[in-house]
This record gives sequence, C-alpha cells and structure tokens, in this order.
Amino acid sequence: MDIPNNKILLPKQELPRSWFNVLPELPEPLEPYLGPDGQPLSPSVLEVIFPPSLIEQELSPVIEHPIAEPILKALALWRPTPMVRAYRLEKALGVKSRLYFKDESVSPSGSHKSNTALAQAYFNSQAGIKRLTTETGAGQWGTALAIAAREFGLRVRVFMVRVSLKQKPYRKTIMNLMGAEVLPSPSEATISGRAALAANPETLGTLGLAISEAVEEAANQSDTNYALGSVLNHVILHQTIIGLEVQKQLKLAGETPDYLIACHGGGSNFGGLVAPFVPNLKNGEPIKCVAVEPQSCPTLTKGQYRYDKGDAAGLTPSMPMYTLGTDFQPPAIHAGGLRYHGSSPIISSLLKSKLIQAAAVSADDVFKFAQIFAGSEYIIPAPESAHALAYSCLKALELEQEGKSSTIVFTLSGHGLMDLSAYETSLNGK
Amino acid sequence: MDIPNNKILLPKQELPRSWFNVLPELPEPLEPYLGPDGQPLSPSVLEVIFPPSLIEQELSPVIEHPIAEPILKALALWRPTPMVRAYRLEKALGVKSRLYFKDESVSPSGSHKSNTALAQAYFNSQAGIKRLTTETGAGQWGTALAIAAREFGLRVRVFMVRVSLKQKPYRKTIMNLMGAEVLPSPSEATISGRAALAANPETLGTLGLAISEAVEEAANQSDTNYALGSVLNHVILHQTIIGLEVQKQLKLAGETPDYLIACHGGGSNFGGLVAPFVPNLKNGEPIKCVAVEPQSCPTLTKGQYRYDKGDAAGLTPSMPMYTLGTDFQPPAIHAGGLRYHGSSPIISSLLKSKLIQAAAVSADDVFKFAQIFAGSEYIIPAPESAHALAYSCLKALELEQEGKSSTIVFTLSGHGLMDLSAYETSLNGK
Repeated sequence: MDIPNNKILLPKQELPRSWFNVLPELPEPLEPYLGPDGQPLSPSVLEVIFPPSLIEQELSPVIEHPIAEPILKALALWRPTPMVRAYRLEKALGVKSRLYFKDESVSPSGSHKSNTALAQAYFNSQAGIKRLTTETGAGQWGTALAIAAREFGLRVRVFMVRVSLKQKPYRKTIMNLMGAEVLPSPSEATISGRAALAANPETLGTLGLAISEAVEEAANQSDTNYALGSVLNHVILHQTIIGLEVQKQLKLAGETPDYLIACHGGGSNFGGLVAPFVPNLKNGEPIKCVAVEPQSCPTLTKGQYRYDKGDAAGLTPSMPMYTLGTDFQPPAIHAGGLRYHGSSPIISSLLKSKLIQAAAVSADDVFKFAQIFAGSEYIIPAPESAHALAYSCLKALELEQEGKSSTIVFTLSGHGLMDLSAYETSLNGK
Repeated sequence: MDIPNNKILLPKQELPRSWFNVLPELPEPLEPYLGPDGQPLSPSVLEVIFPPSLIEQELSPVIEHPIAEPILKALALWRPTPMVRAYRLEKALGVKSRLYFKDESVSPSGSHKSNTALAQAYFNSQAGIKRLTTETGAGQWGTALAIAAREFGLRVRVFMVRVSLKQKPYRKTIMNLMGAEVLPSPSEATISGRAALAANPETLGTLGLAISEAVEEAANQSDTNYALGSVLNHVILHQTIIGLEVQKQLKLAGETPDYLIACHGGGSNFGGLVAPFVPNLKNGEPIKCVAVEPQSCPTLTKGQYRYDKGDAAGLTPSMPMYTLGTDFQPPAIHAGGLRYHGSSPIISSLLKSKLIQAAAVSADDVFKFAQIFAGSEYIIPAPESAHALAYSCLKALELEQEGKSSTIVFTLSGHGLMDLSAYETSLNGK
C-alpha cells in the first residue's frame, strides 16, 4: 500500500535565500509618504523609530534581497512550511476543485507573523537597539515579536488591544513566558493612551490606537525602536518567503493556480503570498488574487483610496492607501488581526491598478467554514485565516454549481488554538 | 551556507506498517486479569465494553501486528513525527549531552493520544459499534478520541475530570467542535457519578472515577463501547509506533541512546517509546529507560505492586500493577494526565523485573525546565510532557557536573497551548 501524501514538502535546502521586493515591479511607483507638513517625508525622519536597514528596505529599488544568515537559521526552525492538499475539505464540500492551503500555522508563534518578526528583531539588534515596542490585535504579532526578540536578545513591550486581551488572556501568558511585557491598550503609559481613556474609559481599543502608543514610546526613548507587524513595505518584503515557497511547491505538485487567496488586515499575509506573483500577473497570466476581509471592517471593498495616517493619534506619516478613516471603530469581531482601518500601500496600489481583487465575507460564513475545515482537516484555523478559507470554499462551491473546477491556494496564516473563546461563542450562538 | 537541520525526519514511506507487541517479550508472562470472583477473567467478559479485535490484541502472543490501512492513512496525516535535536535547550543548559525530543505534539489533537484513538475508533466501527464513552483528565485523550471518532463516523461522550474542565474549559470547545459531547465528572448521568456527588458535592473528580462513569454507561448500552486512553496492553501496542519511529530516527542520526525518557500517567506514552526497545534491554544493551511521574502522584516510585482495580467504583477487572490504591486522591496538580492511582500492567511488570526505572520530579522543577524549554526551543510543552523534559534536563546537568555526557531521548508527548492557565499560575507564583 502506498501511504497517501497530502503535504507538498520542500527539503530544508530549498528554503528561499532571498526575499522578493515587489516595489520595482509595481505598475505605478508608490506615491511618497508625507510628513506632518504635507511634504514628502525624508527617510531619515523614520530613524527615530526604525533602524536604517529597515528604512532602506522600505524604499528599496532592488528586487532581490538576500536573507541574512542568522535570520535564515532561525526561519529554518520551522520553514519551509507545508503546502497541503485539502482532500478531506474537498470531500466535505463535495467539490471537484483542488484546494491547497499553505500552512503558516506551524511556526513557533502559530502564525505567519514570525517571518517578519525575526527579521525585524535581527536588524534592530544589529543597529544596537536594546528594546522594541509594538502593538498587537489578535496577539499573533505580539507573540511572534516576543519570540523573535528573545532569539536576538532584545526586550519587548507589547500594547495589546484591550478587547483582544479580554478575549484571549493566555496570549499574554505566552508573551510573558517568552520574556515580553504586555500592557492593555489604551494604557496609562503614553499620552495617546491616557487621552483615549479620558475620552472613553470603556473603550475596546483599536489597532490604530495601540500603534500610536507603541510609536510614541519608541520615539521618546533612544534605545527603543518600534516594530510593526503589517502594512509597511519591509514587512511585506519579509513575508514574501510564503509566496516564494508556494511557487516552488506548485511546481513540485505540477499545478498552475487559478486563485491565490489570503485574508487581509494590514496586508502582510496577503502580500506575502501574492507579491512574488506580480510579474506573472503583469504578464497576463490568469491568476485571480483575492484579498479577503470581514464585512464588518471593509477597508478594501468599501474604503476610499487616499492619503491617511496609519494610527489613531496621527503620529505616523500619511500613506497612500485604501482606508476607512483613522476614527473608524470596528466592532469587536473575533478576528482581532483584521480590525484595522487602513491597508498596506503596496496592496492598495495593486488593487487600484486592478492586478488583484478584494472581497468581504460574513462572520457567519467564516465560522461555518471554519467548523467544516476543523471537522475535516482536523486543524482549527485562526478566525483571521478562516476568512480566506471561507472565501475559498464559497468560490469552490460556486464553481461547482457552474459545472467548473479550479485550483485554489489559500494561506492558513495561523491556528485558532488561542481563539477558542470565539468558537465557543459561535457554537453557543446556534 | 548550509541550512542547519535540527529535525530528524522520516519520509512518509518509512511510516511503520506494524505495531510491536511487547507481551511475548516480557521477562515474565503477565499475570491474568481477575474478575469480581477473584478468578482469572474470561476474555469474553470484556466484550461488554470492547470489540473482539481489541480484546485479541490485549492478550495477543504475536509480536508483529500489521496496522490496518484505514488507520495508516489517518496516521499519515501527521506521521512520521519529527525527532528533534534540542540544540538550543542544550545551549541554554550549558551541557555537552545530546538531547533529542520525539515531537508527538504535532498531531491533530496536540498529543500522542491520537495514535491509539484512531486505532480504537477504527476497530469499534468495524465491530458495528455506533458510540463510544470515555474519560479524560487533561483533555488530551478526549480531544484525540473526538477527532478519531469523527474520522470513523462514531459518536462520543467524554467524562472530563471536573478539576481539569475548570482549568481548561476550551478543551471542551475543541471536543464540541469535533462533534463530541462533554460532561464534567462526576456527573449525574451515572450511578457512580451520582454516588460520588452525594458523598462530596465539591469533589474535584479523579481519572479513576471518570473511568467508572464511562465504563458503566458503555456496559449498559449495546451500541456503545468504552475506550481507554492508557494503561491497557492494546493501548500500548498502538503507541509503539512512537518507539518504532525513534529506532529508525536514531539510526538515521547515527546515535545510540543512553537514556529513553517519558512521563508516566497510565503508561501509554512511556510504553509507546520504550516497548520496542525491550529486546535490546534483555540483550543487556546499556539503555536506561526512565518513567517520570509527579512527586505528588508517585505511583511507580511509592506505590505497591499488587492486584488493584483500574477505576474508583471497582467496575474494571483487577490488574497486577503498581498502585496507590483506588481511593488515592491526587492533588489538583496542573498535569491532569498524570493524576492516576495505577499503572499499566506492562510497565509495572517491566519495572518489577528492573528492565526499566522510575523517578519522580517536583512541580517546581517541572515548570522551571518547561520555561527554559519554551524560551529556547519556542515550544510550550504540556505539563505532563514537562515531567520527562525536567528529568532529562536534571540528568544532563548532573552528568555535566560529573564531567560526563550522554545521548538522551525524551518524548514531548504534547504541547501546552491548552494548559496556559497552569503557566499563568506558575508565572504569578514567582
């Protein structure tokens, strides 16, 4: 008997040695970030919170960026990650489409966030920085940065969106175990936090506000920098390792994808999957790339494309992007990683130039298909990832109705073992 | 640059095709199970709660048991599991000993329990059984059986020790997601449960009592059987896939083990690792096999070797084993899987004949080394598994003091992502 093999695995030596920078490949050059005076920002201004190496990556015209050896060695702890043929999910849905998921949930933090966390911690440590501040929504990014900081000998303070901390207190436990300090945001530790608490002591917090707190603290302390888990160009650069592996795995499986699907909060997960395929898209290859967001936080599907700030207090530069406005208060949906008013400038540019698409799914569909996936593939997906999963299933079912089938690849960006309160609520709601 | 490879991986085709039955290899034949009349039990009596195939395995004189194809196909979802060289842990401890862990935490249930759960669900489904009852302590076994039952189309009722359910309510959520029903034990659903509640409404519950409830219900319903997650011979048989893979992986790594270490609750995890090595032990190979238990539940290190029941209410046969007595009330330690008064007859026999050893570790050491492991290997171990880990670290440090080093293999039987309340308590206790 042949043992069935559902996993497309790459040998360790096939780990990509360079990241793919999509900036020079964009159909139109990105419009510049703007400072408080409305003028294009001098890159040196960013040195208050970022090391020069990351600023260089943020604006780099070079396509290939070799990955430094210490980062590669740490990534090799769990990478390359499997691309899995979801035979059981296909059977549960009754579709002829071939569904694959790129499994980023096997990382030490349980999500794709570790890919950029390690890189950012490394470049900061090389620049002599001793401490990082950051925000976290769902907790995936905070966990990833806590582990990465430990790997490269840095301290971390994490501002965790209050509603997320309430929903999953054990995210804090993990970060503490890894040596990080965790504060609920808004906190009393910053001017932005105190202002938000004064305005509304009961506020649930937002990612935008937590970013303000982390940026404020980093800007005011010389040994401290700020690390962002999504949105920025250098973050997407580090995440391209996902798409680069998928390209190799598709080749190994002998597949040509019809759909590449990932959920979208700030854009790093989606960008990491899709950016390496931009040259293919420009060549007219018929790959539909779909960024999937919650209907309750519809940045790409209902937002405006314009300059906006990345945070609530307006401490970040203005960036050209799709946005719902910095004062948008997303409801307390159980996908903290997708509660963001804006989007990555790279993703926004790709959407504006119609190289990619966006779609929104309902919370009901998200949990419905998450449960079908859990009950067939025996992996509980993060609610964020379940957005990509739900859209993929809906698409496969729609194609089936039309008598068609496709090859669909989606990213399982994280597991949901820290999100079981959301599942409990969903189970009880029935 | 060579990418460092810390994982000893076997290709899918190297998945063992047979289990290893240690019964014919024991230095002395097992003494028979005894019925309520004190006489050796007729195997047919067990048919009230087990299918004939499992009873046959329980008493089999055959060494090699081919694994049925449907079980192999399900095991292949995540097996063979990695054997990992814990370079970072070695560095954190500052030891020259080589530490390897067999990573059973990568299974769908997050622990080694899936190995026997799938087999038991399969054999019950083949016997026409529609429903299973079981108990669970930490929740690992209940989760594994819920998934396995789903795989083979059975319904499940899980009696979960009340103190464990309180400590980790989300274990129930996972079991519910997989379609299983979960009751706190003692429950009102059984005579044994009602009696225990009448005697002490505040009781924390024990594994022994939860077993009574599950056995009672299975014995009273013809379409329902009982499944046990440890102790019995057929359970250890299914778990030998762990040790069989380790043998291949040691060969691949060019290593000869000095120590084989696993934690011990009922004995299936330890037995699964060690049983395939019994012929080597009988040949006088100098491998020290150590079963590690909590000081607070010292079955092997302080228990008596005698006939005893497997459950609190006395519904099971009497078995020859090390025991603390069925009325032993273990404290509410955060390692629910090790709160059992007895031990597997196979492990008890191996210990009595001195082919293996037993040791107990303190809760302080367990959490101390669990945190060192989490902060170096970036995996949070289940508190149960952390017993094996702690002993392995203590042994490596002791050897280092003596200027010696060894090759130590321990089983990481599960991850601790569902056990973070225990870690939170431990962090706050400092």
